[in-house]
Amino acid sequence: MCGIFGIYGHPEAANLTYLGLYTLQHRGQESCGIVAYDKLKGMSSHLGTGKVSDVFKKHFNFNTELPGRNAIGHVRYSTVGDSGAKNCQPILVDYYRGSLAVAHNGNLVNSQELREELGREGLIFSTTTDTEVIIHLLARDREDSLLERLRNVAKKIKGAYCLLLMTDKQLLAVRDPNGFHPLVLGRLGSSYVVSSETCALDFIEARFLREVAPGEIVQIDETGLHSFELQPPAPSPCVFEYVYFARPDSDVFGRQVYTVRRELGRQLARECPVEADVVVPVPDSGTVAAIGFAEESGIPFHMGLTRNHYVGRTFIEPTQSIRSFGVKLKLNPVRDVIAGKRVVLVDDSIVRGTTSYKIVKMIRDAGAKEVHMRISSPPTSFPCFYGVDTPDRKELISSSHSVEEINRCIGSDTLGYLSREGMLKACRLQDGCAFCDACFSGDYPVKFPRLESRLQLNLFE
Amino acid sequence: MCGIFGIYGHPEAANLTYLGLYTLQHRGQESCGIVAYDKLKGMSSHLGTGKVSDVFKKHFNFNTELPGRNAIGHVRYSTVGDSGAKNCQPILVDYYRGSLAVAHNGNLVNSQELREELGREGLIFSTTTDTEVIIHLLARDREDSLLERLRNVAKKIKGAYCLLLMTDKQLLAVRDPNGFHPLVLGRLGSSYVVSSETCALDFIEARFLREVAPGEIVQIDETGLHSFELQPPAPSPCVFEYVYFARPDSDVFGRQVYTVRRELGRQLARECPVEADVVVPVPDSGTVAAIGFAEESGIPFHMGLTRNHYVGRTFIEPTQSIRSFGVKLKLNPVRDVIAGKRVVLVDDSIVRGTTSYKIVKMIRDAGAKEVHMRISSPPTSFPCFYGVDTPDRKELISSSHSVEEINRCIGSDTLGYLSREGMLKACRLQDGCAFCDACFSGDYPVKFPRLESRLQLNLFE
Amino acid sequence: MCGIFGIYGHPEAANLTYLGLYTLQHRGQESCGIVAYDKLKGMSSHLGTGKVSDVFKKHFNFNTELPGRNAIGHVRYSTVGDSGAKNCQPILVDYYRGSLAVAHNGNLVNSQELREELGREGLIFSTTTDTEVIIHLLARDREDSLLERLRNVAKKIKGAYCLLLMTDKQLLAVRDPNGFHPLVLGRLGSSYVVSSETCALDFIEARFLREVAPGEIVQIDETGLHSFELQPPAPSPCVFEYVYFARPDSDVFGRQVYTVRRELGRQLARECPVEADVVVPVPDSGTVAAIGFAEESGIPFHMGLTRNHYVGRTFIEPTQSIRSFGVKLKLNPVRDVIAGKRVVLVDDSIVRGTTSYKIVKMIRDAGAKEVHMRISSPPTSFPCFYGVDTPDRKELISSSHSVEEINRCIGSDTLGYLSREGMLKACRLQDGCAFCDACFSGDYPVKFPRLESRLQLNLFE
Amino acid sequence: MCGIFGIYGHPEAANLTYLGLYTLQHRGQESCGIVAYDKLKGMSSHLGTGKVSDVFKKHFNFNTELPGRNAIGHVRYSTVGDSGAKNCQPILVDYYRGSLAVAHNGNLVNSQELREELGREGLIFSTTTDTEVIIHLLARDREDSLLERLRNVAKKIKGAYCLLLMTDKQLLAVRDPNGFHPLVLGRLGSSYVVSSETCALDFIEARFLREVAPGEIVQIDETGLHSFELQPPAPSPCVFEYVYFARPDSDVFGRQVYTVRRELGRQLARECPVEADVVVPVPDSGTVAAIGFAEESGIPFHMGLTRNHYVGRTFIEPTQSIRSFGVKLKLNPVRDVIAGKRVVLVDDSIVRGTTSYKIVKMIRDAGAKEVHMRISSPPTSFPCFYGVDTPDRKELISSSHSVEEINRCIGSDTLGYLSREGMLKACRLQDGCAFCDACFSGDYPVKFPRLESRLQLNLFE
Repeated sequence: MCGIFGIYGHPEAANLTYLGLYTLQHRGQESCGIVAYDKLKGMSSHLGTGKVSDVFKKHFNFNTELPGRNAIGHVRYSTVGDSGAKNCQPILVDYYRGSLAVAHNGNLVNSQELREELGREGLIFSTTTDTEVIIHLLARDREDSLLERLRNVAKKIKGAYCLLLMTDKQLLAVRDPNGFHPLVLGRLGSSYVVSSETCALDFIEARFLREVAPGEIVQIDETGLHSFELQPPAPSPCVFEYVYFARPDSDVFGRQVYTVRRELGRQLARECPVEADVVVPVPDSGTVAAIGFAEESGIPFHMGLTRNHYVGRTFIEPTQSIRSFGVKLKLNPVRDVIAGKRVVLVDDSIVRGTTSYKIVKMIRDAGAKEVHMRISSPPTSFPCFYGVDTPDRKELISSSHSVEEINRCIGSDTLGYLSREGMLKACRLQDGCAFCDACFSGDYPVKFPRLESRLQLNLFE
Repeated sequence: MCGIFGIYGHPEAANLTYLGLYTLQHRGQESCGIVAYDKLKGMSSHLGTGKVSDVFKKHFNFNTELPGRNAIGHVRYSTVGDSGAKNCQPILVDYYRGSLAVAHNGNLVNSQELREELGREGLIFSTTTDTEVIIHLLARDREDSLLERLRNVAKKIKGAYCLLLMTDKQLLAVRDPNGFHPLVLGRLGSSYVVSSETCALDFIEARFLREVAPGEIVQIDETGLHSFELQPPAPSPCVFEYVYFARPDSDVFGRQVYTVRRELGRQLARECPVEADVVVPVPDSGTVAAIGFAEESGIPFHMGLTRNHYVGRTFIEPTQSIRSFGVKLKLNPVRDVIAGKRVVLVDDSIVRGTTSYKIVKMIRDAGAKEVHMRISSPPTSFPCFYGVDTPDRKELISSSHSVEEINRCIGSDTLGYLSREGMLKACRLQDGCAFCDACFSGDYPVKFPRLESRLQLNLFE
Repeated sequence: MCGIFGIYGHPEAANLTYLGLYTLQHRGQESCGIVAYDKLKGMSSHLGTGKVSDVFKKHFNFNTELPGRNAIGHVRYSTVGDSGAKNCQPILVDYYRGSLAVAHNGNLVNSQELREELGREGLIFSTTTDTEVIIHLLARDREDSLLERLRNVAKKIKGAYCLLLMTDKQLLAVRDPNGFHPLVLGRLGSSYVVSSETCALDFIEARFLREVAPGEIVQIDETGLHSFELQPPAPSPCVFEYVYFARPDSDVFGRQVYTVRRELGRQLARECPVEADVVVPVPDSGTVAAIGFAEESGIPFHMGLTRNHYVGRTFIEPTQSIRSFGVKLKLNPVRDVIAGKRVVLVDDSIVRGTTSYKIVKMIRDAGAKEVHMRISSPPTSFPCFYGVDTPDRKELISSSHSVEEINRCIGSDTLGYLSREGMLKACRLQDGCAFCDACFSGDYPVKFPRLESRLQLNLFE
Repeated sequence: MCGIFGIYGHPEAANLTYLGLYTLQHRGQESCGIVAYDKLKGMSSHLGTGKVSDVFKKHFNFNTELPGRNAIGHVRYSTVGDSGAKNCQPILVDYYRGSLAVAHNGNLVNSQELREELGREGLIFSTTTDTEVIIHLLARDREDSLLERLRNVAKKIKGAYCLLLMTDKQLLAVRDPNGFHPLVLGRLGSSYVVSSETCALDFIEARFLREVAPGEIVQIDETGLHSFELQPPAPSPCVFEYVYFARPDSDVFGRQVYTVRRELGRQLARECPVEADVVVPVPDSGTVAAIGFAEESGIPFHMGLTRNHYVGRTFIEPTQSIRSFGVKLKLNPVRDVIAGKRVVLVDDSIVRGTTSYKIVKMIRDAGAKEVHMRISSPPTSFPCFYGVDTPDRKELISSSHSVEEINRCIGSDTLGYLSREGMLKACRLQDGCAFCDACFSGDYPVKFPRLESRLQLNLFE
């Protein structure tokens, strides 16, 4: 998962992009970058590993380092194996039609095949990103218009992609026909803004215009904003954006995330009721659902786990003395809330189960009489191939264990998951279209040749 | 306000101190430091401005840079004018009896007088800290025993102080007779730990033993832990630790902060009821009180303001375009929670009123029908001279405005403060002793010559 | 100009490469980098702008960051316009035959044409280096063997190139058929070493084996060292390596640079004698020639200009007060050596003339009675297209001014250049082959279509 | 040894001080710092470990970080045991008469006694510098005038000191009555400049006025420059400034260093002649003397050792493979100059003998037929207590070995030292006063109680 942000026609384009990336930081903290375009000085870029505040330090001078009225930026999520500096985005290249900068949020399902195909034709790869595959395809296409080339490329690439492309003339925002991930348009004075989430528009006080539609190309240039069809839309937005990924104050797929997430919690309380004394969220991801659960169940809501927000990426561990640092580092139980109580613990999902085990133990050690785990989504039994960084199928505890087995593994007294139906009902889309919930159902909207083998491989390897 | 942490007799003393400081980071983010003592290599220190993760970077090697089995550490709060590198603590000096490292949490009320007195005798000051005053007094005292010297110094210094002192032989933990600020003892295997708050003990899995008592000197050396009286206790613990400063999961003055803070919210609901649709906290400081308010009032609790936890100390602002960044940076309203609603906004205190004004406006802009501000403590009309970084009296809006005037200033529909009686009732101490609530009442437990003039000066200057 | 270094089969390959780059630092200080190959962990790279000591900082851990028994490295010279981080070398890419790392010293004369040609086929460029052009050509070639592909590429590229290529199997060292720039082989225990200059072999105590021959490919792999012909040799080694570029303690083209440079000075004394009191070099480049001049002329040699070796790349200049910082920064005259004397000032070349003007003035201001400038090479009238970073022709003062005019421009009493014949005689090659001295003669050994236009453009634009 | 620089009354005071420190970098590379004074903003300081270019990085803003028209700065030499950050200078303190910044070059011989005495009175020490001792004495003295206090302090401190003191009113330059180390005055427009050496005046284009005299206080304030006597002068300038320390282009004690150092070489040739083919200096310290030796002896001078000027303080060594890095790192022999030759190797001094051993071996390995070591000063048999960082007496090879024994230790064919008489003759002072040459003669001009014991201790411990 990643976040992207762009702005066209503003004297402080790069500085505003930096602010936008700050607000999208929850979508990726592994690396970030900005490319700006100035009429006189051309493209300039600044990229690096780490959070926005790591890469753009105190004395960074946007005017001299990233001049220009147009800019695009990117924050990248950590995925194993490709966390190196070379994979920072946006990617900036020269080709025979000029300079091109591209930022990509999503995941192609056939990038490996495309890489091999392009490789066989003698192309080289400087990164391991899908973005470079897309750029190669764009550069090789014979059409003169970038728009047409994009349409040709869209016929070849499969999967999830929100793209920002910047040339010396224009800024293009592209969303795949499935519209897996959100991408929105805003207006700030006479400038246009594109962002993964609306919270970044709010932050820079831009006005929300509308979503970039599934299968749409939005072209912004001197003459204004123009809309084109990339491919006919076949929307299947990612339900996990509601469950976990997006910020609660963002509007995603036509609804505010907070409202959806709260409804997930209420529905969970209806489906998996339990006699208990207190509802405690796993912060921050479980907080809103826990509020909804408490609301519906009438059981008091309390912040029974304190989160340490100062913890950074690098942490110098002692060589002995302390167990299970991974979780301890971030969470500490509030004894008074928990001791002697029957606790409903609400989280958004269980992935491997190891973290849940540690948290349940932490709650018990703090004196809880009972611990009832409630999950505001169905069991995550299938990997995501469209951009969410889930582990291999064999590592997903739900793919090979029943709910009762998982309950025993993580040590809770009872465990309840939201049903698929309950989830979809809570998340209902305004326009009636269907979600992608492949991670729960295994029902992948974009098929691809090796899908079956990759699923099996994941499971039995 | 600051945080201190020390450990005696552990092979990874400095690394554990670093973990302790991480957990105490909420008590100060301006600078931090650690001094460690090793039998062979003596004292070594590492200090710097910024958060713990800024000062102790990825490759920091505790074994080589801060060797030894004893260590003390400090995190410092930003106070105007003395934020320079030279004021980092612990302070490490040599004097004729050897090396001495001192970390101090608190504020002396007569440090200016003592500095002048010491200055007239020809002493020099390398910092602007009270700590250096204390060290000067300790070094000049003629008694051979550090304990006796501490007792002599205690007769001269007035105010709030929790001290950690480390020599080549021992670690001393000292708490002023009023016991303004918390200081606790813990045990980790065969090591002793001292910390400002219990949450740091939890983190390193040390067992909580007891508080260092007001007026007590705890001496830890090869022969174990020994207790001495510094001065007869006259406890007046700081009520603001409960209201705002301490972490909710810490045990302070015998009670867990979460429980007290929740009770403050409940009492507030009893004293200042209001017809409303939703209770929204100003995160994070108002969250627990808001939960209590919601509980008591029966009005639903919702996280109507999203907090951006990635925002750091340095932030590159654009030169134009965006207003009121200070607050926007951290908070964004959740429209669905607020729009069309009568909102109860709960915060722990109002200082200057400017932040409250911005938040109320933000809530209104998000569509609230009514905004009712509720504060979980009485009006803060008086400056603190004992270690909490409050502004001058003339800047405290409550010192010169009635509640109704403040209500108009910040733009809320109604404004309600918790009464002093209500606060003290909620915060009740186990052993019946009285709080210091001077910031609310002007009733200063430790008097000093210039008190009146400083109060007046603050008000009318 | 650049420097390259590689080692095959040593447990500390990257650390030794780092040492080698340190010794080659005089060949480029703009950026540097190392790529290492480990059987288990594959390729890893560390690159950055600045000197070796800037990019590989104190705590850099070669074992964990750059593991493996094979490594190649690169130091890059500053050339206007392409100093960005993206141009750091070695370049590491993936293509369908695996990973490939390439370091390049030299300059292709037809890279612009090749870029355009490759661009028209839809290829993208992430850098502005010739190296990327070579990599594209290598990746696109259909031959299975890297050796054969190199031969095919060699037919397309024109100009100067010393290349190091590293794959998971082998390390290849390639030198263009003209052998413009030096490249040598050494042996360290059972490891093979390749380096731009022998001084790097000396430093790591490797034994000098021989030069890589013009037009040779040296392949080093598990089975040892193998030699292949890239193209038939047509040697025209760069005479400027002797005049200026190489380190005096290196063996270049079969002779030690010190000896050649000293002979240049002696010959200069023979050709351009002058009555004078002292011979003063412009340090460090003119020192050895000045010693030779003094030897031959019998005029005493003195270090009349002190060089400040601590001056780095970035320097914070005051906004006023001081003139002509560029030169002052590095040089200060020794008054006693100069005052009242007739000074022979020896330098290796005059490029734009501005620096020489400032130095002559500095010498006069220090009280010299006469200043006689002597240059240990002929007038530099033509730009180099083979890797030496000379300015455009129109900026070369010799291209449009007579010696007498230059003498007036720089303010010397007399000015003498070494003749072309004198230079070639002093530099004589052991095997009788001819030098490239195009920068002096305009006689370019590798022709290319746009040569005439580029020369003219340079002159009259 | 250290370097100090100050300027009074210039709008870019700190930036010029930075330039001055750059030029004095050869006097100390361990740490540096600047304190500036501005009428409105008071004193501000910036200090750190490392070279000037390490501490004042690219974006350092002198206007905002070090504002004001007056400034003093310091570069510090590395001495074992006190290289920590806390010992950076200038030291800035507050005392009851205001702020005081002090930079010190030299060494007190009775600082230990003074520290103990001050310690017994209860004073604390934050550093291990003599400077802090001086500041304590200044702060404790009862005289109202800083001038008078300085005179009183001068009665107590013994040894070598050049001091710069800055208050809110004035800048004072003080030189001890012996005038061990140089300190000069300059003028830049209407500003006054003080510097350890004249080369810093040259660099900022200040005009050299005169030396600060031994025993003089120069006071610079709004009313101009005023001279006062600190103590009656008893000059004994340090002969080692001529032999090694000062830059050749500086005027020291009335003569240019280059001229003196060259004369040392000439005298050495007269006293210790040898049949040989080439004179080779150990760069850079032996270069000028070697030129003098060659001149007098008629043997050709050549730069037979190439110095690597890029080597920095931190260097990542491989764990094996390479021997004797300390010297190799900096020097590489030029084989053509040395092979088959009888070499005269000229250095300024031999301290422990280990470096000389390695260099002689390096010369032999490069093929020298004979190696004749010539030293341009007498044997260094006694430690310096006045500011030059010499090792303990027992580590000085000359203190316990005859010249012939040393010759065998370092492996040279013959070894010749300049005689004391020869050295003093070459260094002759203009005004006839006597040098301090205690390091050669053991004749210490400033006696102190423990002198004998410290000399013995050094020798037999």
